Amino acid sequence: MSTRRRFLEFTAALGSVLTGCRRSGSSEDDGPRMIGKPLRAYGERSEFEKSGRWLPTTKILENGSSLTPLQDIYGIITPSSLHFERHHAGVPAIDPAQHRLLIHGMVERPLIFTVDEIRRLPSISRIHFIECSGNTRDGWTTKHPPTVQQSHGLASCSEWTGVSLALLLSEAGVKSGAKWILAEGADACKMQRSVPLEKAMDDVLVAYGQNGEPLRPEQGYPLRLMIPGWEGNTNVKWLRRIKVVDQPAMVRDETSKYTDLMPDGIARQFTFVMDAKSVITFPSAGQKLSAPGFYEITGLAWSGRGRIERVEISTDGGATWQPAELQEPRFDKAFTRFRLPWRWDGREMVIQSRATDQTGYVQPDPSALIAVRGTNSDYHNNAIRPWKIMADGSVVNV
Amino acid sequence: MSTRRRFLEFTAALGSVLTGCRRSGSSEDDGPRMIGKPLRAYGERSEFEKSGRWLPTTKILENGSSLTPLQDIYGIITPSSLHFERHHAGVPAIDPAQHRLLIHGMVERPLIFTVDEIRRLPSISRIHFIECSGNTRDGWTTKHPPTVQQSHGLASCSEWTGVSLALLLSEAGVKSGAKWILAEGADACKMQRSVPLEKAMDDVLVAYGQNGEPLRPEQGYPLRLMIPGWEGNTNVKWLRRIKVVDQPAMVRDETSKYTDLMPDGIARQFTFVMDAKSVITFPSAGQKLSAPGFYEITGLAWSGRGRIERVEISTDGGATWQPAELQEPRFDKAFTRFRLPWRWDGREMVIQSRATDQTGYVQPDPSALIAVRGTNSDYHNNAIRPWKIMADGSVVNV
Repeated sequence: MSTRRRFLEFTAALGSVLTGCRRSGSSEDDGPRMIGKPLRAYGERSEFEKSGRWLPTTKILENGSSLTPLQDIYGIITPSSLHFERHHAGVPAIDPAQHRLLIHGMVERPLIFTVDEIRRLPSISRIHFIECSGNTRDGWTTKHPPTVQQSHGLASCSEWTGVSLALLLSEAGVKSGAKWILAEGADACKMQRSVPLEKAMDDVLVAYGQNGEPLRPEQGYPLRLMIPGWEGNTNVKWLRRIKVVDQPAMVRDETSKYTDLMPDGIARQFTFVMDAKSVITFPSAGQKLSAPGFYEITGLAWSGRGRIERVEISTDGGATWQPAELQEPRFDKAFTRFRLPWRWDGREMVIQSRATDQTGYVQPDPSALIAVRGTNSDYHNNAIRPWKIMADGSVVNV
Repeated sequence: MSTRRRFLEFTAALGSVLTGCRRSGSSEDDGPRMIGKPLRAYGERSEFEKSGRWLPTTKILENGSSLTPLQDIYGIITPSSLHFERHHAGVPAIDPAQHRLLIHGMVERPLIFTVDEIRRLPSISRIHFIECSGNTRDGWTTKHPPTVQQSHGLASCSEWTGVSLALLLSEAGVKSGAKWILAEGADACKMQRSVPLEKAMDDVLVAYGQNGEPLRPEQGYPLRLMIPGWEGNTNVKWLRRIKVVDQPAMVRDETSKYTDLMPDGIARQFTFVMDAKSVITFPSAGQKLSAPGFYEITGLAWSGRGRIERVEISTDGGATWQPAELQEPRFDKAFTRFRLPWRWDGREMVIQSRATDQTGYVQPDPSALIAVRGTNSDYHNNAIRPWKIMADGSVVNV
């Protein structure tokens, strides 16, 4: 494309703002300046940045969720300060020097680890998402939250560091007949979940690091389970005990909660894997396009079954689709950033994204998902999410 | 290896700590607990974590460096709060709504961008290190700082998000005869560096995002140059102006500073690329091994010329080398984490790592580097760094 034509497109895209150098404060020399702030030991964000996790207004803040502002984050790493939270009894303040991890039950040798001992063992770092299976639960209803943060913000992605759970279990010596583990947190409600031994011996970490630092308190400091691709609730935080057992413990969060009630009245249990999902984070519900012109459509895709292979975008309500560019490298069971240059012509339209993962699984239409699952469910809605752009540029969750 | 033998190795490794379940506070049921802290909009680290950037004691804190605690970080992402700093006139407090980026000089169309306009353009996210060329300057001297943080902490690695500088320059229309750009910051000293146009049109970003968030103030908020693989000083922060020119501007930081004085008295200028380097961060100078037994040797390697292909570790003063495991995937011009399981037998020994990058370049011995460069230099020392482990387990920078 000629430089002249590119410039014209660019100018049209950004409006009148690139027409010259007459804007104030932009001369070659803007005069003397004051000396700035000093070095400091631990940095903070700019005072001009206010993005925060969304906090519920109707529940007590020790039993609830805060949601990642997906519309504000860049790339694939979620800042630890903005990683979504889900607590059942608040965030315990644990002294790592006092904390212990007990491995017991059907093992040859019960083991107890200090946190320092865990940190001394062979380590693994991997980038993975964690998503609450209650994310996008509004997809089962006709009530639609006004922003992508409120609909999709129970998902985040970090570089996790820890030790292989398989290594710890091998050292304890799993007895024959063992089929599950029961993991328990050190929070006040003693959060528990049962996990099949097969997964526990696969790619699970006992994690102590997040994005280069120790885990944040709300992410389970000093130790948590990191179960790649599985629903967030199984990634037990403040991990204090793993019991090797021969059957699931049928605890509250795998019976009364975290099951999927089907149309025939039977509840699916232990639906651990988070299937492929994607969502456009810009432009997304609650945002407003200032005028017709160039924009980059961008968003996130992820799958609990492996890498994202393809994301397609429709700007005509699903009639046609075009491939988005995927940020490389793409990681297994991690956020994948997608992008598509786009020009909004000022008309009302419906935009949406559709992810395909490495197993060939394609993110379903809402109607296709509901045809199978009905509307009794509360968890595991991974349907395509349309956003409607109104003629005035405002974007709505429809 | 049999489970029994593995257990014996493990127990020997960690000492007496795994011998039973009799430690206090580790029973199956540890009694009632207090409810924890509530959800909050923006998280902070645990009150038990104190790791910080090292601050100088001999210089004013508006003109100096703070250093990343490499001995405390995990994986490849440096927490933004711990990314090293280098300021020449402090950290300006910039309101992004008032900030502008001017592109002028030998261009067809001078352009001025607001920060919002920059954020609207096609975006790119990549993981890259930034290293000050003054990092490990003690390698030219006989004075050796007592910790890896103080010797190697002027290097950090983030996921950067921004717009291609080549795109901005193309839109401005670079005139024939142009060969360099001059970049200027909005800090009080108006920090300037000249960068060859060829690099500016290659992989350089005008970055506004770091690890998913807006840039931290000390990293150039709201805009900085991100010049992959080149010495930190060229990555101009608080970027306010790019002038396209036909020759380097010969500013202070490319004449009086950031040149390499050779043994013959001639200074090498514009030695931009940071060559392959690696360092063991555990066990490293200032740390102490509590007793003989199992440890994981781990550290970081990086190269301004591409990916790290190999890291080797010697535990016998360089007589023999064995390959370390590299964290995958490996990124271009980014930190690569390496790891090696290891047993310390309690003897005095010298340990060191050696990196090879994708060009085949091998990190040099200190003596080999000094044979070429002499000892007049202050910058660009990428030599192998030996740590001596004493019989009492203490580790020393020798």
